[in-house]
Amino acid sequence: MTLYSTATAASTGHLPPKPSLPKRVIIREVGLRDGLQIIGAVMPTAHKLQWIREAYEAGQREIEVGSFVPARLLPQLADTAELVAFAKTLPGLVTSVLVPNLKGAERAIESGADLMLLPLSASHAHSLANLRKTPDEVVQEIARIRAARDTSGVKIRMEVGISTAFGCTLQGRVEPSEVLRLLQAVLDAGADCVGLADTVGYADPEIVRQLFELALPIAGDRLNCGHFHDTRGMGVANVYAALQTGITRFDACLAGIGGCPHAPGASGNVASEDLAYMFASMGIATGIDFDKLLALRGQVAGWLQGEALHGTLWRAGLPKTMRAAA
Amino acid sequence: MTLYSTATAASTGHLPPKPSLPKRVIIREVGLRDGLQIIGAVMPTAHKLQWIREAYEAGQREIEVGSFVPARLLPQLADTAELVAFAKTLPGLVTSVLVPNLKGAERAIESGADLMLLPLSASHAHSLANLRKTPDEVVQEIARIRAARDTSGVKIRMEVGISTAFGCTLQGRVEPSEVLRLLQAVLDAGADCVGLADTVGYADPEIVRQLFELALPIAGDRLNCGHFHDTRGMGVANVYAALQTGITRFDACLAGIGGCPHAPGASGNVASEDLAYMFASMGIATGIDFDKLLALRGQVAGWLQGEALHGTLWRAGLPKTMRAAA
Repeated sequence: MTLYSTATAASTGHLPPKPSLPKRVIIREVGLRDGLQIIGAVMPTAHKLQWIREAYEAGQREIEVGSFVPARLLPQLADTAELVAFAKTLPGLVTSVLVPNLKGAERAIESGADLMLLPLSASHAHSLANLRKTPDEVVQEIARIRAARDTSGVKIRMEVGISTAFGCTLQGRVEPSEVLRLLQAVLDAGADCVGLADTVGYADPEIVRQLFELALPIAGDRLNCGHFHDTRGMGVANVYAALQTGITRFDACLAGIGGCPHAPGASGNVASEDLAYMFASMGIATGIDFDKLLALRGQVAGWLQGEALHGTLWRAGLPKTMRAAA
Repeated sequence: MTLYSTATAASTGHLPPKPSLPKRVIIREVGLRDGLQIIGAVMPTAHKLQWIREAYEAGQREIEVGSFVPARLLPQLADTAELVAFAKTLPGLVTSVLVPNLKGAERAIESGADLMLLPLSASHAHSLANLRKTPDEVVQEIARIRAARDTSGVKIRMEVGISTAFGCTLQGRVEPSEVLRLLQAVLDAGADCVGLADTVGYADPEIVRQLFELALPIAGDRLNCGHFHDTRGMGVANVYAALQTGITRFDACLAGIGGCPHAPGASGNVASEDLAYMFASMGIATGIDFDKLLALRGQVAGWLQGEALHGTLWRAGLPKTMRAAA
């Protein structure tokens, strides 16, 4: 009965968190990058600026605002430099951008962003299709990016996201041993931190727990991000499983936007609002204001009419117990 | 590295389950009762019979076919006796019915069902609204039902589902101490087994873990069911949390049908097909054939046109890794 105190439970509206669970987590909003890159229509820059500002006002403190890829490949994200410049005016906001290669990294270094996210596919087939490089060629590119970053003197963190870490729609199975080998390789190549990504929604909570438990002894606290697509409804459970291994930072998309070109109708990342709700319900701080985040969701939904939106909390709203506690 | 064997993983398509997780679980299909009771239109008996037969052919071995409540209150479930009679012709199928009181229990005893599910609301307010009895009056009714069952000599199991165990839309907070008190009371009154139900989707995985961990020392293996509504997207994660405490039997609704009159647009129980997918992906047997279950989902969706359906797996289908392994 040691985990449970009636007095505490009665006063806070919920049971106390498991002692081993973290007290605070970060939800990085990646809707502007991972969500919008799959949506054909280009969201006007003014809307994106409003999204960033209102996400910040709702308490979000990490936002991936875009990607430094050639505009001809992803016209949806062509305004990334302008978004970074605006995001950097918001005190305390960690501004993240995705970069696919050294050229993108050079733009990220110039942009003033706080963090560049370098994707590396553990799936050989996906790596070739996505970046036209083998995973080991990407590791070499990461070493070159590290050298360029160090030479520049700019303080920008380098995070490597190991994508398709739980399987791949092209290749099928991805060996955990290959994921762990690449994890070590990118750390050796100079990544400041790493994350594991279920890019196509193949993971379940047990494989998440197992792979993070295997990866943590290799990377320690440099393994600090979980990225889970909700393609088959496992997103929230996968986050909970990673949380149990000690991970405290998760990517998510407002309204669960995005998806996978290989899975029509599939959702994108786990919905930011559902994840924020789970953490709040468990007594784990995220800094997020639900009224503001759900209002922003309604705004973004209006901009994305005709697109598939996901997430569950917005339909039912907060439970009475949490509204009373707020 | 002890949890993980490359050879095993490569041959089965996934990492082996955590040694402490169960190897086999039961998904009780409750769509015909908990799902249909919220849907205004009455599903024709012929469709229900086809649903039961095809669920059985898809490998489901526990089905809650209906409820013995007055037909004027729930005309959707008026054909329950006929459904029980049919279900009992299917070898090895555990046929479950819900009963709200002694009168319903007498009909269940006559019907030939294998199990009667008696709901008891841990929320005082919900208990009065739903059954016009306080929780302790329901405990007394359960004792009367036990006496009637014993007198009848009929072998029908008595399961008590403690509903609103994680909170209530009417009352708000439900004290865990009250849930545990009622759990002990219904066991003392003669329940063969008990389950904990998140009737309105207020639970999160941590409260699920904590409440089951507190309840198991009281009920032991007589606590053998988790019932989770997916109103706020936590259903699958809540099942995973209960599974981690050793629970091996879960209610679910095909296509996540149902909902809550107090939460417009909210989904019902966690979707059977998503739950079956999670277990299969983790290497935990359910006996379910996905092709058949998804075909049945399509059939039921056709019968329920215009109703809100839920669940995620049906959109994307099984991952390549599982299709190859099947």
